Amino acid sequence: MAEKSRIGVTGLAVMGANLARNMARRGFPVAVHNRTTSKTTEFMKDFGDEGPFTGAETLQEFVDALETPRKIVVMVKAGKPVDAVIDELAPLLDAGDIIIDAGNSHFPDTDRRTAYCAERNLRFMGIGVSGGEEGALLGPSIMPGGDVAAYSEVEEILTTIAAQVDGTPCCTHVGAGGAGHYVKMVHNGIEYADIQLIAEAYDLLTHVAGLSAPEIGKIFEEWNSGDLESFLCEITAKVLAKTDDTTGGPLVDVIADQAEQKGTGRWTAMNALELGVPLTGITEAVFARTLSSLADERQKASTTLGGPTPGGGENRDDLVEDIRQALYASKVVAYAQGFAQMRAASIEQGWDLDLGSMATIWRGGCIIRAQFLNRIRDAYAEHPDLDNLLMVPYFTEAVANAQDSWRRVVTTATEQGVAIPAFSSSLSYYDGYRRERGPANLIQGLRDFFGAHGYRRTDADGSFHTRWAQDGAEVRTGD
Amino acid sequence: MAEKSRIGVTGLAVMGANLARNMARRGFPVAVHNRTTSKTTEFMKDFGDEGPFTGAETLQEFVDALETPRKIVVMVKAGKPVDAVIDELAPLLDAGDIIIDAGNSHFPDTDRRTAYCAERNLRFMGIGVSGGEEGALLGPSIMPGGDVAAYSEVEEILTTIAAQVDGTPCCTHVGAGGAGHYVKMVHNGIEYADIQLIAEAYDLLTHVAGLSAPEIGKIFEEWNSGDLESFLCEITAKVLAKTDDTTGGPLVDVIADQAEQKGTGRWTAMNALELGVPLTGITEAVFARTLSSLADERQKASTTLGGPTPGGGENRDDLVEDIRQALYASKVVAYAQGFAQMRAASIEQGWDLDLGSMATIWRGGCIIRAQFLNRIRDAYAEHPDLDNLLMVPYFTEAVANAQDSWRRVVTTATEQGVAIPAFSSSLSYYDGYRRERGPANLIQGLRDFFGAHGYRRTDADGSFHTRWAQDGAEVRTGD
Repeated sequence: MAEKSRIGVTGLAVMGANLARNMARRGFPVAVHNRTTSKTTEFMKDFGDEGPFTGAETLQEFVDALETPRKIVVMVKAGKPVDAVIDELAPLLDAGDIIIDAGNSHFPDTDRRTAYCAERNLRFMGIGVSGGEEGALLGPSIMPGGDVAAYSEVEEILTTIAAQVDGTPCCTHVGAGGAGHYVKMVHNGIEYADIQLIAEAYDLLTHVAGLSAPEIGKIFEEWNSGDLESFLCEITAKVLAKTDDTTGGPLVDVIADQAEQKGTGRWTAMNALELGVPLTGITEAVFARTLSSLADERQKASTTLGGPTPGGGENRDDLVEDIRQALYASKVVAYAQGFAQMRAASIEQGWDLDLGSMATIWRGGCIIRAQFLNRIRDAYAEHPDLDNLLMVPYFTEAVANAQDSWRRVVTTATEQGVAIPAFSSSLSYYDGYRRERGPANLIQGLRDFFGAHGYRRTDADGSFHTRWAQDGAEVRTGD
Repeated sequence: MAEKSRIGVTGLAVMGANLARNMARRGFPVAVHNRTTSKTTEFMKDFGDEGPFTGAETLQEFVDALETPRKIVVMVKAGKPVDAVIDELAPLLDAGDIIIDAGNSHFPDTDRRTAYCAERNLRFMGIGVSGGEEGALLGPSIMPGGDVAAYSEVEEILTTIAAQVDGTPCCTHVGAGGAGHYVKMVHNGIEYADIQLIAEAYDLLTHVAGLSAPEIGKIFEEWNSGDLESFLCEITAKVLAKTDDTTGGPLVDVIADQAEQKGTGRWTAMNALELGVPLTGITEAVFARTLSSLADERQKASTTLGGPTPGGGENRDDLVEDIRQALYASKVVAYAQGFAQMRAASIEQGWDLDLGSMATIWRGGCIIRAQFLNRIRDAYAEHPDLDNLLMVPYFTEAVANAQDSWRRVVTTATEQGVAIPAFSSSLSYYDGYRRERGPANLIQGLRDFFGAHGYRRTDADGSFHTRWAQDGAEVRTGD
């Protein structure tokens, strides 16, 4: 009988296959399995010689091929398929074995599965994996959640296959239960905001500055060597530079303008609403995608609803620099909001998230990898209990320096009729956050008038209600 | 034995008590009950002579006092208390009796309870009631959902106690299952947006125009005689005019600026995210309240984060008129979004909502009652399948006329550093909606680059993928 494998992977679609290959290439003996046996055979034929693989035709063979406690990575579609695999595996496993869900599961499902497995004396981990197909093969960012003791059993494998930045693996234990999938969800939400901001910059450069896609590609290439250095800027330059074989023009000019989404951005926004954390950048990005999908309605509206036609009137170089600054400042706000959300969730769930570590493991392997994250890591290293990233001197100054440009961009877009939901909502958040006293006193007055909901006073403790419709007197209603 | 009552009300806190009084004052014999018996005794002592009441000490007495099929209005706190009352009532009732939840329940709970009662041969209705305490007593807006046959049993009572506008009751059958509570939820969401827009106008009038609360109150009073005529404008004028007995200054100036919320606005935003309907106005309003609640953080940020200090530089009368126009245009967008959301929900749930009727029953009794709703009713009367309210000539023209002012207000607020999340996101929605081609083509290009998610082309059917990291060729991946 062959030597037992260190770890198993079931589900050999491209993400699972690439994760398994990543492990075997680095010397870890891996058992592989797929529900459709031909897929396993094919995998072994194509990649079997890349490393110490054991192909298993049945789930029993698969389980038997693993050393104990068994460590089984499940990489199937999020939702019911994950539950189905758990139910098939559970009777074949021994107490203490570890099931690891590496898909894009929603974090409450991960909490539920953790409890379900615990009842069966099994350990369950939900791990977020970012970086797409290429990342899975060459080094993803990995966000493992679940029991710490279980993590220690797979730590060597996961930190070895993860992306490495400056000698540090992009993988660290995130927290208990669904914490790993939670953090991956917020990562994806931030990615939505980042991409929407880039799209707004592209829109302004196209329609206000009058530049072509390849010209804008060059601008993003330049931006990618400064503060904005990031994977997303890098690939924006490449996508904009790409020539279409059919038309001979820029490819992006013939791509349909209806953005799709898979759900993690929406989940992030919904969670922020539940937590009561203002998350305007990511949420506007999600809504911008849904608006883009209403192509027929937009087509009809374009000939009916009036407004300015953008173009001209600005010094091009100044405008380009203003847009760069606006992009940077808005990006800082989007990250500040996402990190504030993780902080609130950590407190509510008792996860004790180390936010600096989250920035650290996102520096490589994942879609939002960027130099910028070093600054966030530094911020939390110095101030572990930071309320908001905007409050550390580096970001305070960065936004202070950018803000004249940022305001000019919002103003220009507003005058010229270009939609900038993420730029403008980020600026409104900034202006709202730096207000010691905002206008919500009126909201409280109205709520007390129509619903007797009460209000607090700035000059006294307690709750108060004014008998608006009766004698107009104020009464104290509570402490 | 006394004559049987036509209807019963259990739960005699102020909303339940006032609904029962409203019914009895109009001649309907009403049985009343409360879990704490002393509350029933007190109610009978205070209001027993207002009409044909029967006070019941026990649930059995209460049930026995009602003609069959029994019609029982439950007015208790949303959530578990509603389930508890249903479980206590069910064994005492006969097949075909009707339980009516008139609280602010979440619509999926209403769907669940409808099924639960059906299994027990009982009929269940979820009805939205808006108008606060005073509305409940004198004439609320009522949004009844559930079985049509059950509705016909209570139609006379509900339409009689509802507010009446131009001889039409503010009550009509909304749709099956949770439709009534759904529509009430969106009503409340729109109320959030409406109030936030008023707060932003107040903020600009205070800090840019430099006006005092009573001066702004007078402006709202004037606005209330034009296009903006509404209950909310009316009470804004009253709240702003109110003098505080303690300080002798405007009351609003000493009310704390932290807005509270009870959940319906948040539910509305979360539902829009789930449905994939862009609902930026209401969502920004919810987030603005959560931002307002971060008083300690805002206090710290106010001395750290730089930016312009608002004030001056504008002709006051022009600015006031610009703000009025901006408020109106943004309000149109908020309603357009809310009605688009109800349309999407109606299609998804098969409710067949008559949106014109929703506008009709909101004209009186409820918090968002306004002249404006007549225009919405007219719009749906002429175009029952309307995609978006912005597309009917009345609103198209109204926004076209307002938009120069609207843009000036957003620009001024941006330059002067005043947060205007709802004004600016509404404008971005408008500018995004009227774009035949937006920048989401770049989003799709990026998603294809990092995640192989594919894209569509404007010049060919099917799905495509570019092998970005390999040979750069485009391949067709589907129909």
